[in-house]
Amino acid sequence: MDLSSFITSLTTSFLIFVILMILFGWLCTKPGNTVVYYPNRILKGMDPWEGSRSKTRNPFSWIREAFSSSENDVIALSGVDSAVYFVFLGTAFGIFVLSGIVLLPLCLPLATTEKIARVVDSTGKNAFNDLDKLSMAHLKEHGSRLWAFVLACYWVSFVTYFLLWKAYKHVSDLRAAALMSPEVKAEQFAILVRDIPKSSEDLSRQEQVDTYFKTIYPDTFYKSLIVTENKQANKIHEELQLCKKKLTRAETIKEMNPEAPTPTHKIGFLGLMGKKVDSIEYYNEKITELTPKLEAAQKETVKEKQQAAAVVFFTNRITAAAAAQSVHDRMVDTWTVLNAPEPRQILWTNLSKSFYAREIRQYVVYFIVFLTICFYMIPIGLISAFTTLPNLKKLLPFLKPILDQDMIRTVLGAYLPQLALIIFLALLPKFLLFLSKAEGIPTVSHAERAASGKYFYFSVLNVFIGVTIGGTLFDSFKDIQEKPDSIVDKLATSLPGNATFFLTFVALKFFVGYGLELSRIIPLIVFHLKRKYLCKTESDIKEAWIPGNLGYATKIPNDMLILTIVICYSVIAPLIIPFGAIYFGLGWLVFRNQVLNVYVPSYESYGKMWPHIHVRIVSSLLLFQLTMVGYFGVKQFYFTPVIFPLPIMSIIFAFVCSKKFYRFFESSALEVVSHELKETPNMDRVFRSFIPPCLSTEEENEEEQLLNAERGNVKQYDNALSQVSKIGANV
Amino acid sequence: MDLSSFITSLTTSFLIFVILMILFGWLCTKPGNTVVYYPNRILKGMDPWEGSRSKTRNPFSWIREAFSSSENDVIALSGVDSAVYFVFLGTAFGIFVLSGIVLLPLCLPLATTEKIARVVDSTGKNAFNDLDKLSMAHLKEHGSRLWAFVLACYWVSFVTYFLLWKAYKHVSDLRAAALMSPEVKAEQFAILVRDIPKSSEDLSRQEQVDTYFKTIYPDTFYKSLIVTENKQANKIHEELQLCKKKLTRAETIKEMNPEAPTPTHKIGFLGLMGKKVDSIEYYNEKITELTPKLEAAQKETVKEKQQAAAVVFFTNRITAAAAAQSVHDRMVDTWTVLNAPEPRQILWTNLSKSFYAREIRQYVVYFIVFLTICFYMIPIGLISAFTTLPNLKKLLPFLKPILDQDMIRTVLGAYLPQLALIIFLALLPKFLLFLSKAEGIPTVSHAERAASGKYFYFSVLNVFIGVTIGGTLFDSFKDIQEKPDSIVDKLATSLPGNATFFLTFVALKFFVGYGLELSRIIPLIVFHLKRKYLCKTESDIKEAWIPGNLGYATKIPNDMLILTIVICYSVIAPLIIPFGAIYFGLGWLVFRNQVLNVYVPSYESYGKMWPHIHVRIVSSLLLFQLTMVGYFGVKQFYFTPVIFPLPIMSIIFAFVCSKKFYRFFESSALEVVSHELKETPNMDRVFRSFIPPCLSTEEENEEEQLLNAERGNVKQYDNALSQVSKIGANV
Repeated sequence: MDLSSFITSLTTSFLIFVILMILFGWLCTKPGNTVVYYPNRILKGMDPWEGSRSKTRNPFSWIREAFSSSENDVIALSGVDSAVYFVFLGTAFGIFVLSGIVLLPLCLPLATTEKIARVVDSTGKNAFNDLDKLSMAHLKEHGSRLWAFVLACYWVSFVTYFLLWKAYKHVSDLRAAALMSPEVKAEQFAILVRDIPKSSEDLSRQEQVDTYFKTIYPDTFYKSLIVTENKQANKIHEELQLCKKKLTRAETIKEMNPEAPTPTHKIGFLGLMGKKVDSIEYYNEKITELTPKLEAAQKETVKEKQQAAAVVFFTNRITAAAAAQSVHDRMVDTWTVLNAPEPRQILWTNLSKSFYAREIRQYVVYFIVFLTICFYMIPIGLISAFTTLPNLKKLLPFLKPILDQDMIRTVLGAYLPQLALIIFLALLPKFLLFLSKAEGIPTVSHAERAASGKYFYFSVLNVFIGVTIGGTLFDSFKDIQEKPDSIVDKLATSLPGNATFFLTFVALKFFVGYGLELSRIIPLIVFHLKRKYLCKTESDIKEAWIPGNLGYATKIPNDMLILTIVICYSVIAPLIIPFGAIYFGLGWLVFRNQVLNVYVPSYESYGKMWPHIHVRIVSSLLLFQLTMVGYFGVKQFYFTPVIFPLPIMSIIFAFVCSKKFYRFFESSALEVVSHELKETPNMDRVFRSFIPPCLSTEEENEEEQLLNAERGNVKQYDNALSQVSKIGANV
Repeated sequence: MDLSSFITSLTTSFLIFVILMILFGWLCTKPGNTVVYYPNRILKGMDPWEGSRSKTRNPFSWIREAFSSSENDVIALSGVDSAVYFVFLGTAFGIFVLSGIVLLPLCLPLATTEKIARVVDSTGKNAFNDLDKLSMAHLKEHGSRLWAFVLACYWVSFVTYFLLWKAYKHVSDLRAAALMSPEVKAEQFAILVRDIPKSSEDLSRQEQVDTYFKTIYPDTFYKSLIVTENKQANKIHEELQLCKKKLTRAETIKEMNPEAPTPTHKIGFLGLMGKKVDSIEYYNEKITELTPKLEAAQKETVKEKQQAAAVVFFTNRITAAAAAQSVHDRMVDTWTVLNAPEPRQILWTNLSKSFYAREIRQYVVYFIVFLTICFYMIPIGLISAFTTLPNLKKLLPFLKPILDQDMIRTVLGAYLPQLALIIFLALLPKFLLFLSKAEGIPTVSHAERAASGKYFYFSVLNVFIGVTIGGTLFDSFKDIQEKPDSIVDKLATSLPGNATFFLTFVALKFFVGYGLELSRIIPLIVFHLKRKYLCKTESDIKEAWIPGNLGYATKIPNDMLILTIVICYSVIAPLIIPFGAIYFGLGWLVFRNQVLNVYVPSYESYGKMWPHIHVRIVSSLLLFQLTMVGYFGVKQFYFTPVIFPLPIMSIIFAFVCSKKFYRFFESSALEVVSHELKETPNMDRVFRSFIPPCLSTEEENEEEQLLNAERGNVKQYDNALSQVSKIGANV
């Protein structure tokens, strides 16, 4: 890529960004769009344009707001997990700013001013374009200027160690503060018990668990909740909920238009066939029919379908924390315990999977992931080969009239080859999350971390290493076969060349990516379409705008990929550093807005994501250091061994951090939970918050919502709904 | 080695064994030797020849007694650790008996009756001697008879899995029974706390620790004992003890011979030079001088020399067990906790070593051990080269007159070359134990396990693999260099040949080794010499016969080496199996006697040695399976892959065992310690039992001994001493 095409690409991306910014500034001031741009505030019962906002209303006020918000605001509105995400963005930004301050003035002039004979690469072209002059490629072999780049490596490494250390400490404090808070959190009083063995005596599970824990904790044991197989009850419960929803909708339709005939629908396949019935009547009947059925199913489930897992409650959070860390039985694969997660993020069906089933599943999943990462191109290639236009016509003859149209043929012709790949890449995160859940992981947050880890391997291996090494190797496979030593030279010339590619890649990512993220064009359009054509009741409308999670499982691997790329090229082509800094700086700004106003976290893991991020940043650093060892070797620098201490230091750093901080992220430190509570916990409420919705009665459900609302975590329905009706009135 | 020399060696060993047996039968009935042959019984206050013993008094009655003793006898007289050692011996014996029952009738006839062309090995000699005909070496390549040997591999593996599984379960039960016993055991009420951080407030260590644990365990915290740097107090304490001992001795001498002048000694270097003084007067003076000095040192130590470690006591053993497994601080490298071991096996000086100091020491020690194992021949070779007779004469001219004598020259000439090696091998276990202690391990039992592990690597690598592969490789290094493929053939011919060597090795080990062990010739001679020439007082005599530990740190690696050799050759040369069975069967018998009558365990770890043994047996099995894969390959057996599942199964077996049993050996399961005690623990006594002897006052010391005596673990002085005086009267 030469300079002009690089600048063209950069300008295009920047223009798109500016347009999206302006669009956002304009759209977010429209009252009808508040639910798209401020859903988190609305759900928390706050005015979307509170304070100074409403007065100024200028398109860039969100920037000031983002800057003026503190970490505590983030924790209050979006929880510790979001705050940890900002620590990550901030740390990455810090690493690149500090590195850039030293590396740009040090390395760029040294590289540019080097007097070097024109090097001609194997293809006969001049190996240097204008951008490459700014990189290490432009340095002489054995040159003494390389010493400056050695220093640069040390600088980048030490900056990273320093900021990571500070960040880990900070996150550890955030987690401690959250865990020691005097609020009563239900999950702090409970532990999950799995792998309960078959009782030798003739006890029911409930009695067995109660006796067992009462003996060990005579003073602090409160109650136990046996995990049940809820499939049947769940099915009826969902059916009932659907009927209720449809009934409300039918009633709303009737209210809006009292003169029209009562709404009807067909009861056959997909509502397209079968007898026509009066909707209100039909659903009322269905509800009266299902309610006792659900109750019967609930009773049967609780009695007959008890599984080998339980949630055990203690009256004291110190005991619960200690219990979650102790071996309970002499056969340590039975009565295994772990900290209870929040009820809303428990994967109930995974709880009853046995110890060895979990282990086997894990290895099977690892193997599948390994195959997916390494060989995903094979099936995709095959599918692409078969889904050519002529093949399609042959296999699906009924599509022929459509395919014969010129325009459709052109579009399809252009996109069909990549179609399989595009679909694969879009589905991959979901597939990895599905696999992670299949491992038998008990909580949603853990499954997301596992999926994020898998996605990270995929992206680093395929995008980063694939582009860097693979491209070069395949291009010149023959040369290498003939002369295996030349592989080193190939790499040496290809590394800086790829830097330009990645420069564009990073710029595209942040300009277009953040532009789309902030302006929320797609959710906006979807919402308006849905509201116009599909939504009838208030809850329908709410469903259409409710934003969901930030989605760490895909967000973090993507950020990590950028971090890996930038850190690896930071010394080879220092020009990439500002781009990295902008990516994370802009990301911090944009997501500050998004987290405060848009996304609603669906769980809270108190920063358990951090060790996962930390390890991956250190791995990126290690990859960078190893690359540099190799690249200095390629440059035939006699003193390359001066870099050897760096990878060793990284390993020691990772080891020390894990020994110092990690276990606190696995389990709660007793000192932390020994802080006093502001009130005696209402144990009954704690207990009932863990009952799955399909097993709780109506009143319990309502009470649970109240409990949740008190904790400030979830939807305050009243506020939200009143907000929605206001909007309805405005449009 | 041919048949005749093999039989000669076997007969010689057997004869030595028989002679030693007869010697033992005769010596152990002499009353003057009871303290050598029954010290454990005497110390436990039991009659050495109680019950039927005294009546029959035949030289083989010990065999009947050994067989009639139950596991509970062993636990009562020598603790759980000894019982676990018998489980090991029994399991190994079982493996070889069950393997032998199938393999001997199956494989021996198949190997002997194979009709095979005479094979001539590389040296031109006939490759088969009579013994080799009984091994797999005598089988045809590609032969279908090899299938029987495949079956044999499966049989040996499954027998091992089955017996190991049963043994692990049994040991786990033994440990659980000991831990849940209703006796009050001081260590079950305490935890060790290390890495206590510097207090931010101005608290003393004592206050800091007390506040910290009182907050977390408001109801169950009892007291804490800060670990102190006892060097100075210890030195004075030892000096005082020595003076007391010497005073008693001087007084005894005077009593025995009241007419003689009072005993005197010189106070200069080693008692050889300096002023002559009256001993009784001198030591009395010294004691009155040292006693207040010790008290002052104790006070200073307790106040000024507090270290960053403590023993924390709880009033409840469930809390103590749970506390020892929980993270206490959010910085997990501070306030690290572990189960308190028995006070007598704490390595006090290691307690205050910091977390990272321990880690660094560990890696340094591993590195030193690695160097020792791999390169120990280099310094020994150098030393041997320099310590030739001419060199000695040159370097140490004053030895010349001695070295010129003919006889001495002959003996030295024969042994000097191996002298360095012999000294090295004798000192190695002590050196490894020293290294293990230097790692910062907090308990003696753990240090012995660590030393045992190191010694196992040494013996397996050097003896087993060294002899098997090394010998062959070095002999024919040139051949291999010329034709690298021939290494496989070399191994194939050398493996069965080595089997004969190991056969003799195992036989020698058990005949001579167990003969010496049982007859205790050396301790007997040493005791009688000491008693005649050195011992003056009763406690002197007692010191001369007190037997000490069984010494697991060297015993177990030696047994493991035999087990590894026998299991590895079990299918290649099945003739070795009976020898293995005899080794462990005879070992069981001999050590049953030794454990019941002789050795006095100096600590109790409740079977923590077992996981260590288990892992090593499984590794031996794995080594066997891999050897077999290789050997079948050498035999060009087309279906060699049918053995591949075996190593995988071994790994899975090890994994499942560790997941099912291991953590219970690391920490106490809560269910186990939740059993009721027979009395409320006397917490003051529990606390005081952990005070190091040099810091406790006289009364405390005595009380501690009482406490120990109550627990039935240690010397009952009165009984022991009365026994000794009886012996004195007899001789």
